[in-house]
Amino acid sequence: MSQAEPQKGQAPSASAVEMNELLLPTHANSLGNAFGGQIMAWVDICAAMAAQRHARRIVVTAAIDAVSFIAPIRVGQLVNLQAKVNAVGRTSMEVGVRVEAEEPLTGERVHALDAYVTFVALGPSGRPTGIPPLIMESAEDELRRAEAQVRREKRLELAEAHKRLRQDHRD
Amino acid sequence: MSQAEPQKGQAPSASAVEMNELLLPTHANSLGNAFGGQIMAWVDICAAMAAQRHARRIVVTAAIDAVSFIAPIRVGQLVNLQAKVNAVGRTSMEVGVRVEAEEPLTGERVHALDAYVTFVALGPSGRPTGIPPLIMESAEDELRRAEAQVRREKRLELAEAHKRLRQDHRD
Amino acid sequence: MSQAEPQKGQAPSASAVEMNELLLPTHANSLGNAFGGQIMAWVDICAAMAAQRHARRIVVTAAIDAVSFIAPIRVGQLVNLQAKVNAVGRTSMEVGVRVEAEEPLTGERVHALDAYVTFVALGPSGRPTGIPPLIMESAEDELRRAEAQVRREKRLELAEAHKRLRQDHRD
Amino acid sequence: MSQAEPQKGQAPSASAVEMNELLLPTHANSLGNAFGGQIMAWVDICAAMAAQRHARRIVVTAAIDAVSFIAPIRVGQLVNLQAKVNAVGRTSMEVGVRVEAEEPLTGERVHALDAYVTFVALGPSGRPTGIPPLIMESAEDELRRAEAQVRREKRLELAEAHKRLRQDHRD
Amino acid sequence: MSQAEPQKGQAPSASAVEMNELLLPTHANSLGNAFGGQIMAWVDICAAMAAQRHARRIVVTAAIDAVSFIAPIRVGQLVNLQAKVNAVGRTSMEVGVRVEAEEPLTGERVHALDAYVTFVALGPSGRPTGIPPLIMESAEDELRRAEAQVRREKRLELAEAHKRLRQDHRD
Amino acid sequence: MSQAEPQKGQAPSASAVEMNELLLPTHANSLGNAFGGQIMAWVDICAAMAAQRHARRIVVTAAIDAVSFIAPIRVGQLVNLQAKVNAVGRTSMEVGVRVEAEEPLTGERVHALDAYVTFVALGPSGRPTGIPPLIMESAEDELRRAEAQVRREKRLELAEAHKRLRQDHRD
Repeated sequence: MSQAEPQKGQAPSASAVEMNELLLPTHANSLGNAFGGQIMAWVDICAAMAAQRHARRIVVTAAIDAVSFIAPIRVGQLVNLQAKVNAVGRTSMEVGVRVEAEEPLTGERVHALDAYVTFVALGPSGRPTGIPPLIMESAEDELRRAEAQVRREKRLELAEAHKRLRQDHRD
Repeated sequence: MSQAEPQKGQAPSASAVEMNELLLPTHANSLGNAFGGQIMAWVDICAAMAAQRHARRIVVTAAIDAVSFIAPIRVGQLVNLQAKVNAVGRTSMEVGVRVEAEEPLTGERVHALDAYVTFVALGPSGRPTGIPPLIMESAEDELRRAEAQVRREKRLELAEAHKRLRQDHRD
Repeated sequence: MSQAEPQKGQAPSASAVEMNELLLPTHANSLGNAFGGQIMAWVDICAAMAAQRHARRIVVTAAIDAVSFIAPIRVGQLVNLQAKVNAVGRTSMEVGVRVEAEEPLTGERVHALDAYVTFVALGPSGRPTGIPPLIMESAEDELRRAEAQVRREKRLELAEAHKRLRQDHRD
Repeated sequence: MSQAEPQKGQAPSASAVEMNELLLPTHANSLGNAFGGQIMAWVDICAAMAAQRHARRIVVTAAIDAVSFIAPIRVGQLVNLQAKVNAVGRTSMEVGVRVEAEEPLTGERVHALDAYVTFVALGPSGRPTGIPPLIMESAEDELRRAEAQVRREKRLELAEAHKRLRQDHRD
Repeated sequence: MSQAEPQKGQAPSASAVEMNELLLPTHANSLGNAFGGQIMAWVDICAAMAAQRHARRIVVTAAIDAVSFIAPIRVGQLVNLQAKVNAVGRTSMEVGVRVEAEEPLTGERVHALDAYVTFVALGPSGRPTGIPPLIMESAEDELRRAEAQVRREKRLELAEAHKRLRQDHRD
Repeated sequence: MSQAEPQKGQAPSASAVEMNELLLPTHANSLGNAFGGQIMAWVDICAAMAAQRHARRIVVTAAIDAVSFIAPIRVGQLVNLQAKVNAVGRTSMEVGVRVEAEEPLTGERVHALDAYVTFVALGPSGRPTGIPPLIMESAEDELRRAEAQVRREKRLELAEAHKRLRQDHRD
């Protein structure tokens, strides 16, 4: 398929990406807890791979939102990342990443964090380009899209509130 | 001063941290644009240093919010990060990081992104501990605190909306 | 479950591990081809995670065998690694890793290499310890075990031949 | 000398490469033992340097064989790698790498592993190209070539056995 | 401003660069002390950023001098680097870097080392090119220039002494 | 031998260390030239290994001197480092490192830089401890010691001159 052809839509499951990493001393502070920034680096790569698989385009990170670190990840644990495209706009798409930490000696798994990354797809000229539609397959897919929609609204409300505060500040 | 003593409050400027990094090929994709995740790794470190300087405690990343990548950062550019504590709660604090990219051959600087990172301070026992108050010095400091307050509200609204959607989904 | 309890056997699918990595410029030579050694570093981590999941023990790499690089992996491609325990001995087990490279803009996938890594499981005292049996579920599982058996035989034949040659050399 | 000229043969000692590395915490697991994959990354680089010195060509890793980890390498130890071309075919050559670990405070050295890496040499067009002959200088050189020959035979026998097993599996 | 235009002189403060880094386990030996080489890597980057800001040219490291490690830097400390251009010659300039280590839980700061790095500025053709003059603003600036002058003299005396010793050795 | 016993002297050749590294894109700027700081990181490790081999003690970097970058090192080149102890004082020793760059396709080698690193040896208590004498074997060894002596004198003269300038500045 040539890069210039329009792409057909597909389900979130078709572009889902799983990563597993072993948390090494080099990824952690001297207490043995993972750096937030290291986890975010993996989240960004994992999400970007899902976005590229859906769009079959080069993608660039546009926004990161609503990242909550629920439980710490410790040296020696397995870090499991699962990325899935949640919602698609004209030239941008939101990817959700669920991160779990697995204790290798017991198999016990905890939900460590969720993160939401928005990407823009670039065409051959380097300008934003259209993204194939997302075809919902399950009620779970619908829920993820509805949540993405709420995050988008809150993001716009927040930008609006920021603008108003800065306007007041200047006056 | 012993670690167990209560800390007096201080202004955001007293704990502000500046980082400058040179964007190397190893931080970028094959088109020469910085990875979002690499930038987030620096943002987390820079913000953590400001949080530690304010609290004089070990801190852990609790949340990352409202990160908007406004302009790409290119290999060979200087990456300037400026972190300042915006607001302080009982055991958590929000740090804002402004990232600019400077073209070394011309000195031209662009605003590349803003990011907001929330940290929890840990006492010697590893449990969340109190944080000294933030003493506002300027209208700019007040604006940053007001914005942090808005972000906190939107975060709570978002958590509430997520919960409602998931409840509906299960029903 | 305590670490000291005997473990029940399980199927290879129960401990299988998938990794996806994006091949960055830092993983490649100046022509844009992945270093064999970088790929081996990922293979070792991926295989070790599967081995740990099966044994629920600390594991150490004992041997690497029969690694054939079939096709080069290029900067910008997705590297997909799939690790599965093939065969289990008293204190060691062989894990097979299949590596594929995916071109993100087209989805085209090529088989890049296979690798076989043998691990020893260590008990709390740091000494080799028993490993739970592998329960075969499919003809595919049986084939993988049979191949592992052949590799083991060839390894022993090779060690024997090495020994003989060195003996002759000394005489 | 131009790259296009035929190269004269040379002895294994003429292209031998020695590397010494200090094993840092970043190369090891949380117990302080080197990762097999990190060692393999050094082995591949060291072997590739010897192969390039012999062929005076760009080389790519084709196979890794018969790697046995005899003794663990610990954080703080010196890792000594010695690579030598063992045997040369028409467009490929086998390089052997002996790895020893040295305890810096006592000078005690242990043999940690042997590894055998096969490379293909590429001509200016990127296609496999001829490799200068290897001129044997000592009985030791002859032994290394004889061992390489045995490994090559076992590799072919193994490939044949794999093929037969997969054929039987499909029938 | 075009790259080809002559640059006006500026004060050392106009191109000064501050870096702050968190010393991670990956930057230190197994006793928790920073590697000298890691610190030098940061010193080189920090100094190069100041040199580029002054010259608005690509710069290459020409010499490193008089680096004294006064106090060790420990894992968990903040590493503060401050680089300033000290003196400018026709095509080279000396940058001084002061490194301090800050204990995050107490704010205590120690002077860890000073280093002096000389850079050559390259024009578009890759050849050494003129550097804008340095405009002294303070007695502190004058002191730094005078010290740079002394280092330059000692460097020339040393080169002369080396040459004489080698001459004597050959005779 | 126990760590507490006095050590007998040995020749510089007995502790000499050779490193070979392949210069990868990750070690270079976007023009393909090695970072000075990366080279210094290798120099420090290589010199530290030689110092540890001579003293059979933990060593820490005390000073780096007279580093002159004579020729650039390019991506794809082999970097050869040779470290040798030049001179030994009561608790410190100077190690010289010669760095050459080899073009792998032609075998051409250029002298890229020399560097001199001074280390202090630490006893079990973490305090500076005595170092075994250096036994000169050749006129070359004597030359290296004489040069180290000159560098030491220039270092003391420089420290003296710095002190005088700062004194004058305060007056």
